[in-house]
Amino acid sequence: MTVLDSAVSAADDLTPRPSDKFSFGLWTVGWPGVDPFGVATRPALDTVEAVERLAELGAYGLTFHDDDLFAFGSSDAQRRQAIDRLRESLDRAGLVVPMVTTNLFTQPVFKDGGFTNNDRGVRRFALRKVLRNLDLAAELGAQTFVMWGGREGSEYDTAKDVQAALERYREALNLLCQYVIDQGIEIRFAIEPKPNEPRGDILLPTVGHALAFIETLEHPEMVGVNPETGHEQMAGLNFVHGIAQALYSGKLFHIDLNGQRGIKFDQDLVFGHGDLANAFALVDLLENGGPDGGPAYGGPRHFDYKPSRTEDSDGVWASAAANMRMYLLLRKRAAAFRADPEVREALAAAKVAELRQPTLGDGESYADLLADPTAYEQFDTGAYFGGRGCNFVALNQLAIEHLMGAR
Amino acid sequence: MTVLDSAVSAADDLTPRPSDKFSFGLWTVGWPGVDPFGVATRPALDTVEAVERLAELGAYGLTFHDDDLFAFGSSDAQRRQAIDRLRESLDRAGLVVPMVTTNLFTQPVFKDGGFTNNDRGVRRFALRKVLRNLDLAAELGAQTFVMWGGREGSEYDTAKDVQAALERYREALNLLCQYVIDQGIEIRFAIEPKPNEPRGDILLPTVGHALAFIETLEHPEMVGVNPETGHEQMAGLNFVHGIAQALYSGKLFHIDLNGQRGIKFDQDLVFGHGDLANAFALVDLLENGGPDGGPAYGGPRHFDYKPSRTEDSDGVWASAAANMRMYLLLRKRAAAFRADPEVREALAAAKVAELRQPTLGDGESYADLLADPTAYEQFDTGAYFGGRGCNFVALNQLAIEHLMGAR
Amino acid sequence: MTVLDSAVSAADDLTPRPSDKFSFGLWTVGWPGVDPFGVATRPALDTVEAVERLAELGAYGLTFHDDDLFAFGSSDAQRRQAIDRLRESLDRAGLVVPMVTTNLFTQPVFKDGGFTNNDRGVRRFALRKVLRNLDLAAELGAQTFVMWGGREGSEYDTAKDVQAALERYREALNLLCQYVIDQGIEIRFAIEPKPNEPRGDILLPTVGHALAFIETLEHPEMVGVNPETGHEQMAGLNFVHGIAQALYSGKLFHIDLNGQRGIKFDQDLVFGHGDLANAFALVDLLENGGPDGGPAYGGPRHFDYKPSRTEDSDGVWASAAANMRMYLLLRKRAAAFRADPEVREALAAAKVAELRQPTLGDGESYADLLADPTAYEQFDTGAYFGGRGCNFVALNQLAIEHLMGAR
Amino acid sequence: MTVLDSAVSAADDLTPRPSDKFSFGLWTVGWPGVDPFGVATRPALDTVEAVERLAELGAYGLTFHDDDLFAFGSSDAQRRQAIDRLRESLDRAGLVVPMVTTNLFTQPVFKDGGFTNNDRGVRRFALRKVLRNLDLAAELGAQTFVMWGGREGSEYDTAKDVQAALERYREALNLLCQYVIDQGIEIRFAIEPKPNEPRGDILLPTVGHALAFIETLEHPEMVGVNPETGHEQMAGLNFVHGIAQALYSGKLFHIDLNGQRGIKFDQDLVFGHGDLANAFALVDLLENGGPDGGPAYGGPRHFDYKPSRTEDSDGVWASAAANMRMYLLLRKRAAAFRADPEVREALAAAKVAELRQPTLGDGESYADLLADPTAYEQFDTGAYFGGRGCNFVALNQLAIEHLMGAR
Repeated sequence: MTVLDSAVSAADDLTPRPSDKFSFGLWTVGWPGVDPFGVATRPALDTVEAVERLAELGAYGLTFHDDDLFAFGSSDAQRRQAIDRLRESLDRAGLVVPMVTTNLFTQPVFKDGGFTNNDRGVRRFALRKVLRNLDLAAELGAQTFVMWGGREGSEYDTAKDVQAALERYREALNLLCQYVIDQGIEIRFAIEPKPNEPRGDILLPTVGHALAFIETLEHPEMVGVNPETGHEQMAGLNFVHGIAQALYSGKLFHIDLNGQRGIKFDQDLVFGHGDLANAFALVDLLENGGPDGGPAYGGPRHFDYKPSRTEDSDGVWASAAANMRMYLLLRKRAAAFRADPEVREALAAAKVAELRQPTLGDGESYADLLADPTAYEQFDTGAYFGGRGCNFVALNQLAIEHLMGAR
Repeated sequence: MTVLDSAVSAADDLTPRPSDKFSFGLWTVGWPGVDPFGVATRPALDTVEAVERLAELGAYGLTFHDDDLFAFGSSDAQRRQAIDRLRESLDRAGLVVPMVTTNLFTQPVFKDGGFTNNDRGVRRFALRKVLRNLDLAAELGAQTFVMWGGREGSEYDTAKDVQAALERYREALNLLCQYVIDQGIEIRFAIEPKPNEPRGDILLPTVGHALAFIETLEHPEMVGVNPETGHEQMAGLNFVHGIAQALYSGKLFHIDLNGQRGIKFDQDLVFGHGDLANAFALVDLLENGGPDGGPAYGGPRHFDYKPSRTEDSDGVWASAAANMRMYLLLRKRAAAFRADPEVREALAAAKVAELRQPTLGDGESYADLLADPTAYEQFDTGAYFGGRGCNFVALNQLAIEHLMGAR
Repeated sequence: MTVLDSAVSAADDLTPRPSDKFSFGLWTVGWPGVDPFGVATRPALDTVEAVERLAELGAYGLTFHDDDLFAFGSSDAQRRQAIDRLRESLDRAGLVVPMVTTNLFTQPVFKDGGFTNNDRGVRRFALRKVLRNLDLAAELGAQTFVMWGGREGSEYDTAKDVQAALERYREALNLLCQYVIDQGIEIRFAIEPKPNEPRGDILLPTVGHALAFIETLEHPEMVGVNPETGHEQMAGLNFVHGIAQALYSGKLFHIDLNGQRGIKFDQDLVFGHGDLANAFALVDLLENGGPDGGPAYGGPRHFDYKPSRTEDSDGVWASAAANMRMYLLLRKRAAAFRADPEVREALAAAKVAELRQPTLGDGESYADLLADPTAYEQFDTGAYFGGRGCNFVALNQLAIEHLMGAR
Repeated sequence: MTVLDSAVSAADDLTPRPSDKFSFGLWTVGWPGVDPFGVATRPALDTVEAVERLAELGAYGLTFHDDDLFAFGSSDAQRRQAIDRLRESLDRAGLVVPMVTTNLFTQPVFKDGGFTNNDRGVRRFALRKVLRNLDLAAELGAQTFVMWGGREGSEYDTAKDVQAALERYREALNLLCQYVIDQGIEIRFAIEPKPNEPRGDILLPTVGHALAFIETLEHPEMVGVNPETGHEQMAGLNFVHGIAQALYSGKLFHIDLNGQRGIKFDQDLVFGHGDLANAFALVDLLENGGPDGGPAYGGPRHFDYKPSRTEDSDGVWASAAANMRMYLLLRKRAAAFRADPEVREALAAAKVAELRQPTLGDGESYADLLADPTAYEQFDTGAYFGGRGCNFVALNQLAIEHLMGAR
């Protein structure tokens, strides 16, 4: 390879390609800027423009809520027209729809939630809305059907019977899974947790709660999670840890990447514009955290962000591009980190890989362990005082230096 | 009942009795006040004094970590002496040991954790320490064995392979369950989640994460959770919601009650001295949240709190008594809340009970739902704009007034 | 007083009266329920209805932003009509306008703020809008002019020159003060701090930052603060401490009471429906925290809350009433707390009043202190180990019991 | 400059030098690892070793609390010996003592604080301890005397009369200032704010509160702030904003750099190992934020961090070095950011510099502004809808790319 080739290829690393599987929600680039204290700062974005611009920028997929594509209460004809128009534009642009989701939160009817609304009539309506949207997801070939229950929750502790709510949530999921099985639809569900906002407390507030809930279902194998960076960070949780547990449980069916600056309202910043060090570790995990050191996750890299309300149309597209560029930059930094011999040494000194080694030996029983004096009676616990340092800080410094392109 | 009887019985409601199942950790009343910025402000508390004082105050149980009872590194004789001395004092005082737990966090050897330490030798040592303590728990008749993995975690994202850590955690739990089965010990395990402190991020940070992890075990039926008020609130999560999900999963094996004032360091205040409204709803759930309106939880009401470092010995016992009094006061308020006809009306207006009703009718299939025009085509979503209010604020106001003894 | 009189008077304590000085923002009861994830659930509320209903409920004042009363961009005639209509209804209902504030946050033009917008044209427009609204405030006899700079801030650290922003903020305040002086308007300014939302970080994020900024002004005596319960609590700060510092600085010009449940988005719950114990201490401070044990604050008790989006019109008015009832209940509880001899003993044991005593004696200099061996050389620091407990937990238990009406 | 020189100089940029003014607390590298749940993992560090190692690493200064240097309760002789030994080692190593601070938090006597302890005897003792330490600070030539009131606060709202506490704080500061003036000591005071931990709520919780308090003093010019990265971030506040306001007020007398990962216990990580993007903006502000684009702060770059408890002695020194390297790396990145023409364009598009321009013209009065129709009547607010984007996201993307060494 010549120096020139190398330069080209380096630049190349940072150009989004369909093979990178970047996808965007229609509601992201289409967000007009309405927030709790302000009206829209931008006009509505036409779906076709969204498709075309995202394709130009290198994305491979578009996702949407039903209400993003056609207004709530649309007639069948209006709905069909919007779907067909989307489909044509997707085909022209070469974009796919890897994921579809349902809006059960914007309209007054959902003010107390959908599946877990205290009002049974609303629960039935919600199920119907989702079933209809499942058909659409199947029609468009989506593999994943996300469910964010943003209105499933409460502000006041006595106003919601949480055990009953979880039972109704379960009833809904069981019904939906059965429907998918019966219809032969090739789709999996992914629950998106969030701790609060818009409700004071939302049910299934973290990746953990959602994973636990899934195990209560009749078809747990059909349901996974769709963790969002900011949502876990709004609870002060380490997003990388949450993703690792989802991967450990075989449940990372989809992911929502964005940026959040600490415990506050849901910021939906560009990916990497929040906790940068955690974003670096996340991309490292997704790309290099598999058992063989390869990708641990093969699905879409989906950006669920909002172009800041301060931006105009140029800013919208600059921000969309920034998400992908951040991911690619971090991927490049993570690759260099993994390839650096000094990093490997530091990882070894920190015994990071030793954790993959079972604690008991091959064929060893607890009786054997109990009989092993080196494990307890002769084990030198004193050596850990003033010695046997973990080398974690030095390892982290190497990580940060790689993140900063300083090695 | 005469007026006088009623007055006596009312006062009575607030006197702790063994039947109330109040228990305390030996490390709680025994906390000498060492904190990150200060040395002890109180001398060590003798175990026998702890037992006697707690019994006098009306507690029924004492719990402990191995290292609370006998110093780390004690000889077998020292250990036995401490155990026997405890046993005698318990027998004299009529206290039981409903729960035992193991200290895998204080000593330098555990600086990177126990079961998930990167260092395999430490993991083996930790298992041995726990196995030994299990025998002691069995000897003392404890029904619950709590595991708080306070050092299982990391400060730096690349220093801990979280998937490997969860696998080692699982290996440890599987081994311990097998040991219990084989030995015929009548004990259940309860994992205590915490989001952070002392580690930057702790594994299994919330009730949800622990519940999800339990489902990966070989004997999930033997393992539940021991949620602590402050630990969930340190992540900004609603403790009542977490407890409700644990109950829903049949996993509330034990509970740690205390007080926390928001997202900050672990305060371990007296129960009720933190988020009072949430404490009211918690007691209401524990006492009246069962399917029949009776208790939803029958285990110990365990206080895992710290007498503030500002207090001397009198303050220690005043604070111990305050925990129980707070619980009893809240229990009384919750009973009055449930009995108030106006509350019942408000609950009905808020359709709280309607959530117990399945969304589908008896025998109704999704096909039936799809065929029901009243569920969708004719459903009047518009009625929820400017109407069909949920009555949640009025209900909450009633709850707060009951909490304040104002009704 | 007969028993009957006493009962009447007790009930009486909880009936809001104009002398209680309760006021509401027009935007509070008028909030239609638009939030980041939902459209309105309630129709717009007519100003006259707001005035009449609030008067019936016992409020004494109404406050508003210019844009609440007449839409942004109204013609002079429309504006005048709205003002006159308000005035008539106020006169009829006997309500006053103790405070007026300006909306510099809803419209696209203010997307980067008003006084500190990077765009100088917007800054000039903002000043004009505020000056115009000052005239209106004066016309309506408002004593306080609140400034909440909700859009003064940034999401990205390099996008805002904070020192320059503070200088522009100062320029604006200086100009406004001069205008008020020159026009002979009897009005004081009150800055309302907030840490974030809608901006990622808002300038003057806490009571402290606002107080510090005020000292840089040309007329600091004309400017105070308008702290809001939830805003301070969104930063995890103790609202009572913040109010106490504002009082200490002579700067508590106005107050916004509401409820917030921890560090998260701005909830604007009913006062007392958030951190109840802190609300109790707050009312105790406002009512009994003066140097003579009398009120420490004499201004309006202003509720800046939002009727939950789940509520219909009945819920709106129930929630408005709940704010006042919570205040009155807490006032009653605080009075009983202060009157309880056991509380007085506990306060004495905790040496709370000893803190009012100067550390140096009357006429004592540091030289005298240095020469006093009892202060240092002979001072028995050892007595504080295992002794000289502060009695804080017992005192707090008394406070909570009074709050719960249990004494 | 040849290519080789340039390379050398580039490497050079990252070698700490005394001219960089890096200083460390003796308690930082000397922290043995005691935390709320663990005993020491490292032996005590000898003062002389600390001095020598820090000098070797390139630091220029050492700071300390009195109790770090000689144990609380030392005899005069022991104290003198420790001081002399320190002094000799400093002289040998060429290190200075730019700052000294007093420990009013570790011992039981300070369990309720020093200057604001409810117990007047303790307040007098605290003053004596500080006065004595001031003499030492003067003897060692320190320019700054930091006061961190970590125990000045409360857990319970009725246990502390905050207004009285502030008055006692003020009394103490006034006395100390007078002492310094009278003794002719060349020293300035710097208050270090912290929101909580070890107390539930600490007085003067943020930079803002401290700045406001300073204005109430008799000699405000002698007192500034010593903000600590993690302390502000524990309240979810933007550290760069806080530093900017301190600079704006002319009060940035000292700074404590470290790392914190969100709202939780005080982590005291290596500088840059927390919120990296904010650290970048901070260094940019300190180095390039002056009115002329030069340094905005000329004092010590003081690291107040803790080597993680997992580390042994090697890890301690690696972590010390990491702090300085992080600062230098960030300084280098910030310089490149400021020099990049594309950044300059983006800053111009974002109108960042326009905020330095007064809102009123030279000599313009509010009357002129009121008479300018272009400011209001003719101002095109509509242009900000769908237009006049702020370019903030693109600017931030450039900043992050520079931070990552990707430009």
